[in-house]
Formats: sequence, C-alpha cells, structure tokens
Amino acid sequence: MYDVEEVRRDFPILSREVHGRPLVYLDNGASAQKPQAVIDAVTRAYSEEYANVHRGLHFLSNLATEKYEAVREIIRGFLNAPSTDEILFTTGTTEAFNLISYGWAAPRLEAGDEIILSVMEHHANIVPWHFLRERQGVVLKWVETAADGSLDPQAVIDAITPRTKLITLTHMSNVLGTVVDIKTICAEAAERGIPVAVDGSQAAVHMPVDLQDLGCDFYAITGHKLYGPSASGAVYIRRERMAEMRPFMGGGDMIREVGRDAVSYNDPPHKFEAGTPGIVQQIGLGAALEYMQGLGMQAIAAHEADLRDYAVARLGSLNWLNVQGKTQDKGAIFSFTMQGAAHAHDISTVVDRKGVAVRAGHHCAQPLMEHLGVTATCRASFGLYNTRAEVDVLVEALELCHELFD
Amino acid sequence: MYDVEEVRRDFPILSREVHGRPLVYLDNGASAQKPQAVIDAVTRAYSEEYANVHRGLHFLSNLATEKYEAVREIIRGFLNAPSTDEILFTTGTTEAFNLISYGWAAPRLEAGDEIILSVMEHHANIVPWHFLRERQGVVLKWVETAADGSLDPQAVIDAITPRTKLITLTHMSNVLGTVVDIKTICAEAAERGIPVAVDGSQAAVHMPVDLQDLGCDFYAITGHKLYGPSASGAVYIRRERMAEMRPFMGGGDMIREVGRDAVSYNDPPHKFEAGTPGIVQQIGLGAALEYMQGLGMQAIAAHEADLRDYAVARLGSLNWLNVQGKTQDKGAIFSFTMQGAAHAHDISTVVDRKGVAVRAGHHCAQPLMEHLGVTATCRASFGLYNTRAEVDVLVEALELCHELFD
Repeated sequence: MYDVEEVRRDFPILSREVHGRPLVYLDNGASAQKPQAVIDAVTRAYSEEYANVHRGLHFLSNLATEKYEAVREIIRGFLNAPSTDEILFTTGTTEAFNLISYGWAAPRLEAGDEIILSVMEHHANIVPWHFLRERQGVVLKWVETAADGSLDPQAVIDAITPRTKLITLTHMSNVLGTVVDIKTICAEAAERGIPVAVDGSQAAVHMPVDLQDLGCDFYAITGHKLYGPSASGAVYIRRERMAEMRPFMGGGDMIREVGRDAVSYNDPPHKFEAGTPGIVQQIGLGAALEYMQGLGMQAIAAHEADLRDYAVARLGSLNWLNVQGKTQDKGAIFSFTMQGAAHAHDISTVVDRKGVAVRAGHHCAQPLMEHLGVTATCRASFGLYNTRAEVDVLVEALELCHELFD
Repeated sequence: MYDVEEVRRDFPILSREVHGRPLVYLDNGASAQKPQAVIDAVTRAYSEEYANVHRGLHFLSNLATEKYEAVREIIRGFLNAPSTDEILFTTGTTEAFNLISYGWAAPRLEAGDEIILSVMEHHANIVPWHFLRERQGVVLKWVETAADGSLDPQAVIDAITPRTKLITLTHMSNVLGTVVDIKTICAEAAERGIPVAVDGSQAAVHMPVDLQDLGCDFYAITGHKLYGPSASGAVYIRRERMAEMRPFMGGGDMIREVGRDAVSYNDPPHKFEAGTPGIVQQIGLGAALEYMQGLGMQAIAAHEADLRDYAVARLGSLNWLNVQGKTQDKGAIFSFTMQGAAHAHDISTVVDRKGVAVRAGHHCAQPLMEHLGVTATCRASFGLYNTRAEVDVLVEALELCHELFD
C-alpha cells in the first residue's frame, strides 16, 4: 500500500512553508525535490568516502570508484537496458542530446538528410538538431500532435523518407503529459534501419521504462527530475550506435594514449565520458533510483494516475480554465491558460502566494506553444509525493486568481 | 595566524582512518576534500531551498536562482575578473576547454593554423585540440620545458608564427608544480593579437589569481579541486572572445526563440550555458571559494610554500628518490620515481597501507611523461589542510617502500 504521507516525510523540503503557507510543490516537471536518502548519500560521499575516481590506487579512490561505477548497474536495471556498458553518465538530457548530435549525427549526416521530430519536443531535443540544420544543411521534419495532444505513431512513420537518418521523440511531453507509443515507432524504424532517440526526461520519472521492450537506440534520463542531484543523469546508447560515434568531449579518462601528433581513445562507454565526472551527483542519483525502486515504479505510476484522474476531474470543472493535453493515459502534467485577463505569469504569481509552486512560460517547448496558438501556459506537474489535497489547494488558488482577474 | 589544526577540523573526512591509520590525504591534485561549510551549503540547498532556476516565478525558484547567480559574482571576485557576465559556469575544466575548442576555435581555425601549447599540459588542454588536428588539420606546436621543469616564456613567444591562432597553457603544472609566467606571455601575445587560454585548475587552488593583471582571454577553474562539489566549475572568457563564439551545447536557457526552421540565442553568458545547470554544485562552489577567501589566498599560499620547502628538504634527502620539477616557486606538488624495483603503482599501494593517499600514473599528462622519459610517476600533492607532520608520514612510508623493494 502506497502511503503518500509516509513518502512525504522522506522529503525534508516538503515540511517548509512559503509565504506562511505549507509548500505545495507542483513544479516537478522542471525539477523534483530530493529525499533524505539522496541528501544523506551526498553527505556521506563528501564526509567519508570522497576522492577522484578511476585513476587512483589508494583506498578512498578505490572506494569512490566502486560506489560511482555501481550506479551504472543501478541505472541499467532501472531502465532494463541490455548491458551496463551501454549506460553513459551525463549531466542531464541536454548533454545527452548534444552528445548524440555531435558524436553520432554530425559526422554522419549530410545536407538534405532528414531528422524527424514532433512539435512537442523540449528544446534539449530541438536545438542540437538546429545546429546540424545551421551548420550542415540537415532538414528537420516536424510531426504534428492531434487536438487532444496525442501523437499518432503512424504520422511519424509516414514522415519517413529515404533521406530520414534519425527519429527523435519525447517519451512523455513535459507540457501535455502525452505518452508516445515509442515501441510501435521503433519496430517500424528498425525495419528501415533508422535509429530512434528518445527523451525520457519525464517518462522515466512517472512510469516503468523497459528499454529491451521499447527497442530504441538512445534513451536519455535526467537525474534532477528523478529525485536525484542536479547535474546527474545518463543516456542509454545501443552498442552498435556507440561503435559508430566519434568522441564528443576530449580530456582525461576518455583517452588511451595521447602523443604530440596522435591520440587514441578508451573503450566505450569511457570513450564518451571526458574528465572528472560528477562523482557525487551520480552516487546521489543511484540513491534516488533505489529510493524509487523501493516504492516501486508500478506503485508510483498508480499513485500518480490517481492524482491525474482526480486533477482531470477537478480542473475540468473549472469552465474558465483551458487545459491542454487530453489523452487518457497522460502523465500528471497539466498545462493551462485562463479565460480573462490573467496571463500565465499572473496565475503563477498569485498561486505562489498560496504556497503553490507552478511554472509559467513556454516550458522550453516553443514549437508546441506555436502549435497550440499560445505564447505561454501555466503548468502544474505532479510527483510521487503529491496528494489529492494538494490538487484541492491548487484549485482553490486558481479560483482566487480567476476572481481577482475576472 | 594560519592555524592548520583548526582548518583540519573543518574537513570531516580528515578525521577518518584508512587501513587503521589516520588518513594522510596527498591526492589534492586529483581532487580536494570538502569543508563542512560546503557540505552544509549542499544540504541546505536540497533540504530547504531547492527548485530549478531561471525559468520559474515561484518563491523557491526565485530563491534558488538568487543563490545560484550570486556565485557568478563570488567567482568573479575570486579571480578578479573584469565583469560578472564574463564568468560561465561549467562542470569543470574539461568542459571549459571543449567549449573553447568547439565554440571559439572550431569555426575560426583552418588547416595549417597553429595552436601553441606546452608539453606539460593536462589532457583536458590537449585532447580538444587534437580533435581540431584530426578534424580540421590544425597544427599543434609544442613548447618544451627545461630540465628543472620551468617553462621559458620566451620559448613560447619564439614559437609564434603568422599562423598562430591560439596559445593555451597551464598556469601551474599538475605534475611538476611549475608556475608559468602567463603575464609575460599574454603581454607579448596581445601585441600580436593572439588570444591566450589558461588552465587554472591547479593554480587557482594554490595562489591568488588576478585576471586583470594576467591579461589572458580564457581562464578555466575546476570546482572539485577548489574544495567544492564534483561537477562544479567555471571559465572566464573575455567579452570580445565570447562575442566571437558560436554556441557549444544547445538546449534550454541558451536560446531566445526556437522555431521550426529558425533559432536565435540568448545573450552571453547564458548563450553558452545550456539546460538545467549544476545548481547545487555551483552553490557549493560559492561556499568553497568563500571558505578559501575566509582563510585568505595569501595565507593559504604561504602555508603551502612552507609545506613545499619542508617537503623539498625532506624528499631531497632521500637519495634514491627522483623528484621531478625543481623550480623554487613551484606549487606543493611532487612527482617522483624510486630507484630500484618499485614502480610508481607499487609505491602508491605501499604508502596507502600507511594511510597515505597519493596518485600513481601518467596524471593525464602523457606528453610530459614522454618528455621526462618515464611512463608513470607517483605524485604527492598538498592542499591547505596538510601539515609538516604529514610530510614526515609520507617520508617514513617511502622509506618503508624503498626497503621493501630494495
């Protein structure tokens, strides 16, 4: 039985107040709060077990290396990836997509080659491809979402041409909560030999992910959204794709030998991990994933599905609120605007006075904003520690805002 | 008065034992330990003040943004850089040099253009330039060090040709401790319009750095060597150089507008900072720099000069020990090999049994190893919390090792 009140006690920040009100943290889509287990793992690492990794022979260096490298296997298990050496540590999904763009795509794609992406991608999965458009003449092909925010896998498949070199999609929209049928798309893309990259920044937080079932080539996760430290993260890269990649960042650890006029590289995954990594961040991410697995991903998903259904009903009863994204199996992410004078930023500011943290803006998804015909939305995004009572607080705060601006 | 015993009490890990002996941590060149002030800053950020930065309007997001952005000014002050918006946050010096290579050099340098560097550079300041050699035909010009480990500024200046587009040097060798006369080189390079990049990974830890006095164009520092969190760091980039750069990583925060077939970028420094940054790491780095400034960089340098002189005398008395790097004003970094059968890795393993953490290997400086005619050295690198008594423990451990392998 999922006891959300017990879960909440694991997160010290949730007992704080904001403007004299209990904090209602509904900005999980931007970043999640951290359980004590993560904070303790970080403190322990710095207080008792810290040294640089990989290059030392002394006790603390071996200890830190062991703790750090163990996280690779935790991540592999969390994603059910085929093997540990297909897991690369990153500072987050932005670095992951830049790695894919610079390391895999840039040396392979030519002018006129096409990359398929959806209009609901996050800028992290857009701007690295714009670089290839600007610098190499690569063509970006955008697939539209339907009115309910769904993405038809057939529309993605239909966008494939002989010039398609990569399909890159979010697994769950950070604005709409839409879950994309990655598996169907991967099966079809594999038939045609086209790699599929997936932005798992939101999906991996809210639902069980099974990479062996999905069949994608790249899958990026963001540690700080997974209740882990800032600047932690990882990307799964299929062995065959990794073999096709050239190094992205150069520095220590990723080399085999450095001469004056020659350089040779380490074996993957280290070939793609340059310099001293985020040792303690990744140790903290390991603690975060173990914490989530302790609760159970199915249980977390079920809890959040309940919150979603409750929020759908409560927000749906506000006839002056326009909620974007209506798919039934969506994540508990609600973007909305209000009829009347209140801009998204006004809503955010007003509900903040009631202790409710939501985000306002374009959510790093400007093509989607344009597609939806808005410049900004207000977004309430739920996490494993949120409650129905917090949905009620949000609704009350929105009602107050509506009154104020009516 | 610098009270090293009081300083040591600020670092919780220093009271631990290794193999039943008090820890003698002499691997500061690889990474430094963290004072309680840094650990507390990290804990406080996660427990009380955490949210994503820049894009929020709610209380916690504003608070986190304020704490995070304040670190830019702390770093500016620490380096005496001209202005805060010339400070870019990085995950460390490896990312900094890749940013300079991809963002400034790659779009500007052509086949046959030359980059001058010294043979004692760290791989972080070599491999990104090898990429340009491999991919664009750029020529690397190496300047030798003298027998005592010094680098003659005139030798660097003499290496300049009409094809020289960049000079990139360490400020302090991570192997030899050699301090490089960056100021003289910058003055001459400026006359000829050649930018100078400086690897301050070691120097900024051990001596006061004044960028307005040095006159370089790029200066990179590494947070985890500065007693700060792993994956923290920054690079100073002169405004004029930043204006010449194209973006390196693409994602959130670094854009102004993202369309389907167009993208425009944010103002510097944000243009070069993509995605959610290492919020808490940088807040921790701010605490680390304030801690160092509280002790005083002159006082730290004086303490370490005393340690250096003591270690020079004690290690110099071991006539079976070959210490590399003999300059008088060097940092307290000692690389050595032993006459007889003991390989650098053996030495490291033996002294570790006595609680002494030193590093063995090529120290990410293979061209220097080749120049010195060794494959590896053992390195003892001191920090602000080390003591003369720890030098004695090292010497005893080395004597034991010498006996064992003699």
